[in-house]
Amino acid sequence: MTTPAAPTLLLVHRLTVRFRDCDPLGHVNNAVYFTYLEQARFTLWRAQLGFVAKSGGSAGEGFILARAECDFRSQARYGDELDVRLSLDRVGRTSLTYGYDVVDAPTGRLVAHASTVIVRFDYALQKPVEISPELRAQLAAPVQPIA
Amino acid sequence: MTTPAAPTLLLVHRLTVRFRDCDPLGHVNNAVYFTYLEQARFTLWRAQLGFVAKSGGSAGEGFILARAECDFRSQARYGDELDVRLSLDRVGRTSLTYGYDVVDAPTGRLVAHASTVIVRFDYALQKPVEISPELRAQLAAPVQPIA
Amino acid sequence: MTTPAAPTLLLVHRLTVRFRDCDPLGHVNNAVYFTYLEQARFTLWRAQLGFVAKSGGSAGEGFILARAECDFRSQARYGDELDVRLSLDRVGRTSLTYGYDVVDAPTGRLVAHASTVIVRFDYALQKPVEISPELRAQLAAPVQPIA
Amino acid sequence: MTTPAAPTLLLVHRLTVRFRDCDPLGHVNNAVYFTYLEQARFTLWRAQLGFVAKSGGSAGEGFILARAECDFRSQARYGDELDVRLSLDRVGRTSLTYGYDVVDAPTGRLVAHASTVIVRFDYALQKPVEISPELRAQLAAPVQPIA
Repeated sequence: MTTPAAPTLLLVHRLTVRFRDCDPLGHVNNAVYFTYLEQARFTLWRAQLGFVAKSGGSAGEGFILARAECDFRSQARYGDELDVRLSLDRVGRTSLTYGYDVVDAPTGRLVAHASTVIVRFDYALQKPVEISPELRAQLAAPVQPIA
Repeated sequence: MTTPAAPTLLLVHRLTVRFRDCDPLGHVNNAVYFTYLEQARFTLWRAQLGFVAKSGGSAGEGFILARAECDFRSQARYGDELDVRLSLDRVGRTSLTYGYDVVDAPTGRLVAHASTVIVRFDYALQKPVEISPELRAQLAAPVQPIA
Repeated sequence: MTTPAAPTLLLVHRLTVRFRDCDPLGHVNNAVYFTYLEQARFTLWRAQLGFVAKSGGSAGEGFILARAECDFRSQARYGDELDVRLSLDRVGRTSLTYGYDVVDAPTGRLVAHASTVIVRFDYALQKPVEISPELRAQLAAPVQPIA
Repeated sequence: MTTPAAPTLLLVHRLTVRFRDCDPLGHVNNAVYFTYLEQARFTLWRAQLGFVAKSGGSAGEGFILARAECDFRSQARYGDELDVRLSLDRVGRTSLTYGYDVVDAPTGRLVAHASTVIVRFDYALQKPVEISPELRAQLAAPVQPIA
């Protein structure tokens, strides 16, 4: 139930905007930012937990994305280098909240600010379960930036 | 600055989940829901305003997506028929808020609840502008469902 | 090893171009046509075989996409209604070839012509297997157009 | 009209498979390989020509993708590092052909082999135009690998 006094920066994930990420308005389509968040989050989990998203997995415990929100502050375009700065904003009994600043890497300009709520879930029981102290410690550990 | 007393249902947009919308977890990927919202919103605007999203357009007034949020309530899978029920939740001086219930069409089961904030923007001035009374009236008019 | 004397039209699959299908050039991105082919093919298989693409499936027999090719003849844009006309062009011992005409539904204008080679594969043996006479008959049966 | 005696390797483009690139079968979806080819091709053109794909561009000369084909040889999965090895296979009067080997970067295993035909096009005239000797020389110049 502990909540960090301040958000803890856990990971900086660098990515390149693909042409396919952009829409007829010439900029990164809004839906694609949620893919960027996912890439950052999964990269974090791979480093912290050895997590590999499996196909068809439906046994044991896992994480469920319960909520995502994003404020779009400025535009990004094809070829841009972006950094997703992922921080742990809150850890509750069965859920946690990540914050994300998506910034233009060369200039630091804020492109988007986002947040996601993740729930620890038991697929067999089909209900949320408590985040164990061990898992809690793992989830709070910053990792080296991974491209 | 007027705010409707209650959300007004403007459009029900029917869509089919593509295989490509789904990820290795076997369900619709979270980012794709924002594409579903966009489809509903643009279908609304085409019916209300004759709006066609143009490539490269940068003159005159338009809408900017300022914020999007989504609560993921249950899963959808390849081949599912979904209805996006779009309502006008609020109209302010320069912005408006849409609410969306994404439901499984055959059963009515809630799959996701979402919200987006749209800002009226003058591209030449590069700043938000007031939503005119005429536009306000157009935006409040329900339209026939369009597949 | 039998080959039809002429391609047999099996399915006409109607779809609507999403805004997200389009790129900064303002038209449907080339990669998205292969998603359209996949939608038509899977719709065919659902009707012919009751096929549902499963996550994590790795036992028994299935189809593998071995090759895909597409000639891009004209452009399609956001909101266009397209028909994917899928025909069976060839059935071999372990593989079959589908042809696809993607046409603008209102005008019949050819947007793309494509072809895919599918191999019948045994996942346990990890090698191609013969298409049985029963399966061969199922695969040659035209189905009603399904949206 | 000159054709190189042998394909010339022009670029090696490194990329990471995103989770969103994968489908319920747990591997990179077939359509996504065409996005990988596009990324390699546009990276090449940025290095050779200073090319930036513009939105709404419809004046002057440009390239049109006339045909794409891909043989799928083995699977790639979320998190894999892939190299797209792009070669110039043929230059004709108004068109050119690129070949692509998509390989698993750590092992060199072939994942896909692909080819695209590109046409030099005059948007004002709406027809193919000759590739000038200067452009021909630029297009044949290998570039440093760019991530």
